[in-house]
Amino acid sequence: MLEKRDALIDTTEHDSLQTADAKHLLHPWADLSTLGDENALMIQHAKGVHVYDSKGKQYLDAIGGMWCVTLGYGHEELIEAMASQARKMAYYTPFGDVSSAPSAQLAEMLAVLTPGDLNRAHFTTCGSTAIDSAVRIAHYYYAAQGRDSKRHVLSRRNAYHGSTYLAASLSGKAADRTLFQYESEFVHHLSSPQYDPDIAKESAASRLQTLLDEMEAEIARLGADNIACFVAEPILASGGVLVPPQGYQAATREICRKHDILYISDEVVTGFGRLGHFFASEAHFDIVPDMIISAKGITSGYQPLGVVMISDRICDAISAGAPEEKPVFSNGYTYSGHPIVCATAIKNIEIMKRDGICQHVREVGPYFIEQLRTLIDSDIVYTVRGDHLMACVECWTGDEVGPTAKNMALAQRVDQYCEQDGLLVRPYENLCIMSPPLIVERSDIDRIIATLGSALTRAQNDLRAGLLH
Amino acid sequence: MLEKRDALIDTTEHDSLQTADAKHLLHPWADLSTLGDENALMIQHAKGVHVYDSKGKQYLDAIGGMWCVTLGYGHEELIEAMASQARKMAYYTPFGDVSSAPSAQLAEMLAVLTPGDLNRAHFTTCGSTAIDSAVRIAHYYYAAQGRDSKRHVLSRRNAYHGSTYLAASLSGKAADRTLFQYESEFVHHLSSPQYDPDIAKESAASRLQTLLDEMEAEIARLGADNIACFVAEPILASGGVLVPPQGYQAATREICRKHDILYISDEVVTGFGRLGHFFASEAHFDIVPDMIISAKGITSGYQPLGVVMISDRICDAISAGAPEEKPVFSNGYTYSGHPIVCATAIKNIEIMKRDGICQHVREVGPYFIEQLRTLIDSDIVYTVRGDHLMACVECWTGDEVGPTAKNMALAQRVDQYCEQDGLLVRPYENLCIMSPPLIVERSDIDRIIATLGSALTRAQNDLRAGLLH
Ligand SMILES: Cc1ncc(COP(=O)(O)O)c(C=O)c1O
Ligand SMILES: Cc1ncc(COP(=O)(O)O)c(C=O)c1O
Repeated sequence: MLEKRDALIDTTEHDSLQTADAKHLLHPWADLSTLGDENALMIQHAKGVHVYDSKGKQYLDAIGGMWCVTLGYGHEELIEAMASQARKMAYYTPFGDVSSAPSAQLAEMLAVLTPGDLNRAHFTTCGSTAIDSAVRIAHYYYAAQGRDSKRHVLSRRNAYHGSTYLAASLSGKAADRTLFQYESEFVHHLSSPQYDPDIAKESAASRLQTLLDEMEAEIARLGADNIACFVAEPILASGGVLVPPQGYQAATREICRKHDILYISDEVVTGFGRLGHFFASEAHFDIVPDMIISAKGITSGYQPLGVVMISDRICDAISAGAPEEKPVFSNGYTYSGHPIVCATAIKNIEIMKRDGICQHVREVGPYFIEQLRTLIDSDIVYTVRGDHLMACVECWTGDEVGPTAKNMALAQRVDQYCEQDGLLVRPYENLCIMSPPLIVERSDIDRIIATLGSALTRAQNDLRAGLLH
Repeated sequence: MLEKRDALIDTTEHDSLQTADAKHLLHPWADLSTLGDENALMIQHAKGVHVYDSKGKQYLDAIGGMWCVTLGYGHEELIEAMASQARKMAYYTPFGDVSSAPSAQLAEMLAVLTPGDLNRAHFTTCGSTAIDSAVRIAHYYYAAQGRDSKRHVLSRRNAYHGSTYLAASLSGKAADRTLFQYESEFVHHLSSPQYDPDIAKESAASRLQTLLDEMEAEIARLGADNIACFVAEPILASGGVLVPPQGYQAATREICRKHDILYISDEVVTGFGRLGHFFASEAHFDIVPDMIISAKGITSGYQPLGVVMISDRICDAISAGAPEEKPVFSNGYTYSGHPIVCATAIKNIEIMKRDGICQHVREVGPYFIEQLRTLIDSDIVYTVRGDHLMACVECWTGDEVGPTAKNMALAQRVDQYCEQDGLLVRPYENLCIMSPPLIVERSDIDRIIATLGSALTRAQNDLRAGLLH
């Protein structure tokens, strides 16, 4: 399918693109100390599980775009769905009582896929706007019942929820706190809840109890009457694939129920098959949240979409308690429920069902983790953790643990060798994070492990030879 | 092009779509008192300046989707651009130093189209995320210079900037303030700056002076050292097509310069041709802002895109002042610079240039306003205002002015008659707001005026006959 790719390997184009990029783009998470440098990796083509840079070099994409390209690249049926909806009806306002077939149909499909009575969809444009809207809905819900004081929000350190002012404030990664402003009057962070049995010094049960005690203490400190919601990724993704101790999700859900605090599950990463189910909350973690947000894999990354799935109980209360003189739900976006975007998401779900993608992940996911775990033998691997198709390898030089300068330089070297050898992993601090397209086969997984293994060996040699700084 | 449309007029489908909509969607600006009612207008097809509902009824779309479908519906070249980029490379992460041809090329094109040294693009997913990011960038800019106290933000009543927690807080429409929470510690609203010469009781000069005095007084009250930025739509769109007095934009820009307050121009509506130029700030209002945000018309509404265009001066300061130990610009979205979205925007700009769309708007825009103004003769029209292809008709029963219950019922009746007669206008309070696709011809404009004129007459008869409640 990449017929003319070779013809496109045009160094002039490559150079001028890098120049345009350097002069005219401010990237998300740009390194400001090198703003203007002409060294961007230009990804030009993509097909299946592979991407190609502007020089024609092929890479196996172990990042899945960015946790999102679940069905792989160049999927003709998704493209056809987009184009065909665009021809039929490219856009119309979703405001008030105007609607479109794709948005209504997708909402219905999502209502079936989500657990419990989460039957109503509020569409947004990305994960950030979804979590932003979800928290706002929690505010509205309590205010509609005359309980305005319930407006504080519990989040967790190392969480990542996006980058609107509110979403960035909910996020709790220390590395992301920079010179921006953050909401801190009503947003509060509990401890990061990871538990890694391989390296833990305490039992899972004791770790769990500590986390729950802290949560209860924070609720007591703020007063349950002042707290609207708790927002939580089932597994903290960008924070470093942090898996909480067994039973954590169910226990925190129970605490929320007890104190009448809404539980908002952020399934932007864990949803749409990454853990082997459309939504992981109930199927994998045995909880029914009050709201679930989704984005990324919902369109296989082909189109920008976010959604808040809301329980009927919440919607009924909102509807019943809306002020009679002004019952308008003044939240939403021009592009909410965009027909082309929703048509893509519908097709994505249809393909996932038809091709048994969740089942496939339940088969290859454990193999991926099992194979990755063979890398623990490397001296520079501190630990390997993950679940199904989200995983990471944590590097260390053998001294201190964590994101020290030395460990980060080491992980960066591993990433570089991977890239040289045609494998893209997501470098973050001292971690190599992986979330391959869900269509990866065992052979792709074998190649990922082999390439990563060799990169680890070379990086370890560099370390021994004193070639790391 | 609507070959199979008739075959698609399927009442069963229509009914089941309305049911799905009623049960499973929470629309932006939904009327919560009727949540669950099965009466949504389902728009199913669209071509050129026309949209068609699920029963096959044709409407002339005087709303332009929602201020956004500038090139009209079913534009094959836009669809082809989307599909062809999707085949080539549907998505890859834009984070850090990874880039794509469409995002780099679009950034370069926007740098050429924007005034002054606004040469760097930070892409987002919609208008709300663009204004949210712009304000955050203003915060970063001053913090990078060690001036953290400069974090307050000036906005205006009746402004509309979107619906993230921060964007909704910047917005100043009383009708939109509901049971949600709003930031009020650092966000402040000046008076709504409209001046309508037809109905004004004072001169434009005196109105302007009052507005500027108020702005100076607010700056003095807060202290210029505590203010980061002023955010302003050149013409307040959703607030009711509110046009400030002549010279207002230039004078407020000057005040900002004097006090070292960043001027952020929200061109989500006014940009991309609606006022006859790609950007109205300089071409129409003679100002060079520090940042301009855009969305909507940037893709003709075909794809969700927002952007902040930032001056080199700001980017240089941000880059120079970023902390050495953590120089990361931690803002942005998974879908920032999405290749398919950017490819659509590039094609949109190319078509606009080739087909002379801005020139066309400069020709038909004045005709539209001139023809609309003939409606002032109606007893139920209080005033008509606008500029080029953004305009509104303000209704009144002859008693009180403004959005009273009676006036709103009257305007709603006008909207209903328009809809009956195949014309969609955007009902808002006691206004009929119009922002047709930029490709409207004089004949389309004539039809808009004729239909609206007849609707006004019929509504007036209803009013006289006591048939309005
Ligand atoms: C768990 C989680 N929530 C929310 C977001 C924000 O999504 P977006 O970048 O689409 O705004 C992300 C993005 O990585 C995420 O990983
Ligand atoms: C002037 C202005 N700014 C910002 C926005 C928000 O854009 P979006 O709905 O894409 O978030 C709008 C939307 O109507 C707008 O009119």
